[in-house]
Amino acid sequence: MSDQPPFVSFLSDYGRADEFVGVCHAVMLDLAPALRIVDITHEIPPFDVRAGALALVRAVQYLPAGVVLAIVDPGVGTDRRCLVVEVEEGFLVGPDNGLLAPAVAMLGGPRRVVSLESPEYRLPAPGPTFAGRDIMAPAAAHLANGVPLESLGPVVDPASLAPGLVPLPNEREDGSIACEVLWVDRYGNCQLNVAPEQLTERGIAPGGVVGVRVGERERRARWVPTFAAAKPSELVVLVDAYGMCALALDQRSAASELALRAGQTCVLTTPETAP
Amino acid sequence: MSDQPPFVSFLSDYGRADEFVGVCHAVMLDLAPALRIVDITHEIPPFDVRAGALALVRAVQYLPAGVVLAIVDPGVGTDRRCLVVEVEEGFLVGPDNGLLAPAVAMLGGPRRVVSLESPEYRLPAPGPTFAGRDIMAPAAAHLANGVPLESLGPVVDPASLAPGLVPLPNEREDGSIACEVLWVDRYGNCQLNVAPEQLTERGIAPGGVVGVRVGERERRARWVPTFAAAKPSELVVLVDAYGMCALALDQRSAASELALRAGQTCVLTTPETAP
Amino acid sequence: MSDQPPFVSFLSDYGRADEFVGVCHAVMLDLAPALRIVDITHEIPPFDVRAGALALVRAVQYLPAGVVLAIVDPGVGTDRRCLVVEVEEGFLVGPDNGLLAPAVAMLGGPRRVVSLESPEYRLPAPGPTFAGRDIMAPAAAHLANGVPLESLGPVVDPASLAPGLVPLPNEREDGSIACEVLWVDRYGNCQLNVAPEQLTERGIAPGGVVGVRVGERERRARWVPTFAAAKPSELVVLVDAYGMCALALDQRSAASELALRAGQTCVLTTPETAP
Repeated sequence: MSDQPPFVSFLSDYGRADEFVGVCHAVMLDLAPALRIVDITHEIPPFDVRAGALALVRAVQYLPAGVVLAIVDPGVGTDRRCLVVEVEEGFLVGPDNGLLAPAVAMLGGPRRVVSLESPEYRLPAPGPTFAGRDIMAPAAAHLANGVPLESLGPVVDPASLAPGLVPLPNEREDGSIACEVLWVDRYGNCQLNVAPEQLTERGIAPGGVVGVRVGERERRARWVPTFAAAKPSELVVLVDAYGMCALALDQRSAASELALRAGQTCVLTTPETAP
Repeated sequence: MSDQPPFVSFLSDYGRADEFVGVCHAVMLDLAPALRIVDITHEIPPFDVRAGALALVRAVQYLPAGVVLAIVDPGVGTDRRCLVVEVEEGFLVGPDNGLLAPAVAMLGGPRRVVSLESPEYRLPAPGPTFAGRDIMAPAAAHLANGVPLESLGPVVDPASLAPGLVPLPNEREDGSIACEVLWVDRYGNCQLNVAPEQLTERGIAPGGVVGVRVGERERRARWVPTFAAAKPSELVVLVDAYGMCALALDQRSAASELALRAGQTCVLTTPETAP
Repeated sequence: MSDQPPFVSFLSDYGRADEFVGVCHAVMLDLAPALRIVDITHEIPPFDVRAGALALVRAVQYLPAGVVLAIVDPGVGTDRRCLVVEVEEGFLVGPDNGLLAPAVAMLGGPRRVVSLESPEYRLPAPGPTFAGRDIMAPAAAHLANGVPLESLGPVVDPASLAPGLVPLPNEREDGSIACEVLWVDRYGNCQLNVAPEQLTERGIAPGGVVGVRVGERERRARWVPTFAAAKPSELVVLVDAYGMCALALDQRSAASELALRAGQTCVLTTPETAP
């Protein structure tokens, strides 16, 4: 970091209607004026640790080297810990509730973990409810300034970290796959926890057809290479920009059409089991 | 400012759907390429000077030294003045409608005030309706560049500034407090214009119970140290991150539950007066 | 660009709820750490190329010299090209669907155009659906780094670019003007594709009255210099901050009052033809 500005990549459920994000920026820049901040997103639904963890893991391989600050913290003010996790190429700062876990795993696993307990690296706080401003943003800035990890608090056992909860698809005996909508994006595309290899293992090749059962209703979806290959109103499956299978409609919302939200389940059936 | 980049901290009611904020950034960076901009928030409700003033005063103690640019300007295009207010550690730029007043007071009061009338420090404007782009953002950039305050226009009497309107709680003879919701945050917490000392003066200590009357209905709220200390669905009072009393529910919206919005009133009653 | 940081000005329909914008920032800063990014807006309605083109052309004269990155791309994954257009003072990067055309024209027209096909300046992509991240943001960063234009792909004929579609007002034989709402801003002001000269040519001077026909209903609107000159609830016409005629109400939404949206038509009538 000596010849280029240090980076903090910042994700939260703070929204932008209040001044929370701006104040965290201000706190970091006051401590580290040369810092550059990348806002990943701050529109994680309030308290939705799972959505935050998934957005972070989608973004993390693209982030510049430095510090990741991630805050979705329904347990603020309890005795849940605020942590720094050192990984091979940087640090992640956030609450110990599973939010960081998938990103840490993707970055090679934890090297050292410290609990943010040193009062001299916190801001004095009039109340205990804004740990982002008072504990975690300052820690990110101090790390970017080169403050040694162990100054920030006691080392804790990486095995004690709260685990991440990423659902695994359930491959059933009849060859169908019980899966979950991981994410509905702005355009209404529904990312599933299904890799394209799971389709090809079932004899479904690009261009083939998959059954998609939502509730009682089953539709057919063609596996196409891009949105534009879909006919008007045709439900399709494609490999999305993260390498996962997604349900989509061209220039329309598949989520609205299928009444699907993040966290809901659906079943993919193979040609043999499709009606 | 010689050895670090100058900062402008920027708050407005422009929203982000239009290009207003981006254009103000562009105007400032074109005039001052080394400038760093902190976006406090741009989602102040349109024309809501009071909400803007309150957000600014919550943020201001955390902002990096430099210039504050604040624009909520229902009188744009009238003869209301655009001002720079010099305070001990920097400058605030905004319309003369009370938006800046609470922040100026918190920063030690005005030293000098100038009305932004020098045409050579404005942008040429095709119409009179975007004073942020044409008058106030350029002034912020010029100040960050070190242009002397008095170059920007005539000095005006600080006593002539529009006052801020921050409601004071009304302490009643029966010991109850008629108060106002200052702010409902993203999570639905309702900040009141009541300091915790006002509760303790009435014999209510942390852990004690306060009556909360909204309209005809009165509920009880326990004074807890953090959100997490609330039982499910229990209405609580806590000292928020700004040191004020707030009504809250754990991981749910107290504003929705009580049908409260910013600016509405409620009454806090002491155990003696509680039903 | 040698003595100041290079700038990329960025507009899209990505929204901020997902991590798309943050990841594009991260990709650019990873390639060009000294880069400064100006976010024009990312709230263009999904797939609305026309709204994106209009926002870009409103902003473009204010942007700092450098690169413009604009992404509204309903044809992502098809054989539509991704282009760099060199203009006199910089570069514009975006899909070849008319999005860039009005801004390119305002900046003096295209000098050279290149199709972004060189694989060594793209990111490796797990799927074909995020061309912003994998093709266009990297190109913007490489241009900011000084990579020669022709390295990014084959030169193409500027005459082959998709044209922009900006509606021209229709001046009728009876003296009325059939016009279109170009844009409804956050405050509900309705920008029309009508220049003030078109009113003065019809004998309507500032202070005069225009007829405004929406559907079957005709209202009268006074031409005022600023919002504040409107009486309460009075519909007015004014020259907006971009030099165009706009329909407005003081501190209220003219769009709501008239039930107008961007893209809808209305008819301006002269005093002679007004009822």
